[in-house]
Amino acid sequence: MVQQETRQWLLVNKPLNDPVLSGPNATFKLTRTTLPDLNDDQVLLKVLYFSNDPAQRTWIQEGMDPERMYTTPVPLNAPMRSFGVCEVMESKAANLAKGSLVLASTGWSEYDVVNAGDCRPIHVSAGLSPTNFIGALGGPGLTACYGLIDRVGTTAEDAVVISGAAGATGSMAVQVAKKLIGCKKVIGIAGSDEKCRWVESLGADICVNYKSPSFKEDLKNATEGFVEVYFDNVGGEILDFMLTRVKRHGRIAACGAIAEYNRGFSSGLMNWHQIIFNRLEIKGFIITDARATGKSEDFIKVLMKGVKEGKIKIGPETETVVPTKFEDVPRTWMMLFEGRNQGKLVTQIV
Amino acid sequence: MVQQETRQWLLVNKPLNDPVLSGPNATFKLTRTTLPDLNDDQVLLKVLYFSNDPAQRTWIQEGMDPERMYTTPVPLNAPMRSFGVCEVMESKAANLAKGSLVLASTGWSEYDVVNAGDCRPIHVSAGLSPTNFIGALGGPGLTACYGLIDRVGTTAEDAVVISGAAGATGSMAVQVAKKLIGCKKVIGIAGSDEKCRWVESLGADICVNYKSPSFKEDLKNATEGFVEVYFDNVGGEILDFMLTRVKRHGRIAACGAIAEYNRGFSSGLMNWHQIIFNRLEIKGFIITDARATGKSEDFIKVLMKGVKEGKIKIGPETETVVPTKFEDVPRTWMMLFEGRNQGKLVTQIV
Repeated sequence: MVQQETRQWLLVNKPLNDPVLSGPNATFKLTRTTLPDLNDDQVLLKVLYFSNDPAQRTWIQEGMDPERMYTTPVPLNAPMRSFGVCEVMESKAANLAKGSLVLASTGWSEYDVVNAGDCRPIHVSAGLSPTNFIGALGGPGLTACYGLIDRVGTTAEDAVVISGAAGATGSMAVQVAKKLIGCKKVIGIAGSDEKCRWVESLGADICVNYKSPSFKEDLKNATEGFVEVYFDNVGGEILDFMLTRVKRHGRIAACGAIAEYNRGFSSGLMNWHQIIFNRLEIKGFIITDARATGKSEDFIKVLMKGVKEGKIKIGPETETVVPTKFEDVPRTWMMLFEGRNQGKLVTQIV
Repeated sequence: MVQQETRQWLLVNKPLNDPVLSGPNATFKLTRTTLPDLNDDQVLLKVLYFSNDPAQRTWIQEGMDPERMYTTPVPLNAPMRSFGVCEVMESKAANLAKGSLVLASTGWSEYDVVNAGDCRPIHVSAGLSPTNFIGALGGPGLTACYGLIDRVGTTAEDAVVISGAAGATGSMAVQVAKKLIGCKKVIGIAGSDEKCRWVESLGADICVNYKSPSFKEDLKNATEGFVEVYFDNVGGEILDFMLTRVKRHGRIAACGAIAEYNRGFSSGLMNWHQIIFNRLEIKGFIITDARATGKSEDFIKVLMKGVKEGKIKIGPETETVVPTKFEDVPRTWMMLFEGRNQGKLVTQIV
């Protein structure tokens, strides 16, 4: 084979606040490189879709202590780390034929040479799309199940608030809470009236718009009598307010803090005392723990059953697939932080 | 009997920040009143000792939502609420003889008329003092046990950090952790070198002074390899720093936040993301829950056994008993927030 050239986006400046997309302080830099020849048990991948995850922002934060991260930070001058749905273009691995579809951590690269053992083959049966494996049936769906079911033991007796409810994980959490667990009340929080109506169409009893001037009043009304469970994807001010809306002995699944990631991780929480006064229980979690313990296999079965029974929606409306030229990959990724996605934000390389 | 006159300290202004002890905005006001005649099953109490508890500050905070408090806020123009060790001066209750010692919630009053059913008789056997029942063998000792043993399941395998370690609850937590549970390492945090040496004399492997310029470095060294458990009495900046020092999957017992009580309850936490990244588990708790479920009876037995075996110190060094004229009761209470107590701060009425 001919050695494969590829473009890559490297991390060249770790941001403290908003990532910078151009100019001398740009966070990422587009380069071109030649990939090595395939060794035995390696494959050449072409990326079809990139997964866009708020967690990626935490991997590039300036000044983080690597010992306190849940994964290795992206090194400077290395390709920005990302999961992708890829096609096998060449193979020296017996178990991965040319033309197969796989999930792999390629980084922001058009092509990549990867060990076959680091690829997860996906089989797109009828009714599914390849992107489901980085969305509803991937990290976001598993995270929703792991947080709600395993970490805070949500049951039908619970009223649940879910922030970031129009996001990839939040929209799955809404569906899992209402359609699979059967929670007595599911309250979403999202960033526009349109998103809120969509979240309600997924099963939320009500969804409140955090950009509305009446947000706090709306959320107070929606949580009258307080709620047993809060599934937090956003951190910051919404978390702080929710600390006053979780019932005595209630539980909080601390999943993410996207509102803080471009603000120097400065939650500035004022209501910690609510945790004491109302005996709240907080559990932080990361989906890799469910993968390590094999629990994620159970959750995939739970999700697939929900899909087959028509309870869980995984159709095109649950994904924002953005056709993107490779030179615009960071631009599409930034849509996450601008709230421009409904459901999973997927970069489709064109 | 002659109707009993008494002086009382009323709450007249709810503070947002520091309580004010004099002038037109004073938090408390000294008044004189006449107590009602005794009804059947009532007793006339004379207060010998007041218990001083950081939690009292939370009962008088301006602007708190009563629905989110764990106890009724003190109403304006009512006596400041307080527990006390009292002597029965007159009795119309068959089961409480004149001269008995009892614990009761009298408020800051020299005398009070109380239902016998609201008094807890105390029996001061050899080796004990009446004040032990508001200190080592009262709320603080029970809180230490409930938090460490029940709420976060501390075992001998755990390294534990305890803040406010020279305070009433902290000094008991240090002893329970080291002497009863046998934790592999107990690290105290206190506010002077002298206090730190005292905390070490109680069993802490090391105690670091948070007023030292090298505090963070000292605490980092003391917690090398991170710790499994943090028992938090202080909130605020120390809690925020400790969020970076608790080990992956570690636990935090959220007991109090004295550092925030005179600062408008504004923790201003910046490190919430550590709860996610490191999958921390936080449990807020209030000792009344242990009382309601009968667990406190078990803990009293555990503590008494520890005392008898010489493991738990409850002598005069574990209490700061301040002889106080009634007109100076608020002044002595304020010593809590000035860090002027070693162990339990007790107001002895003289």
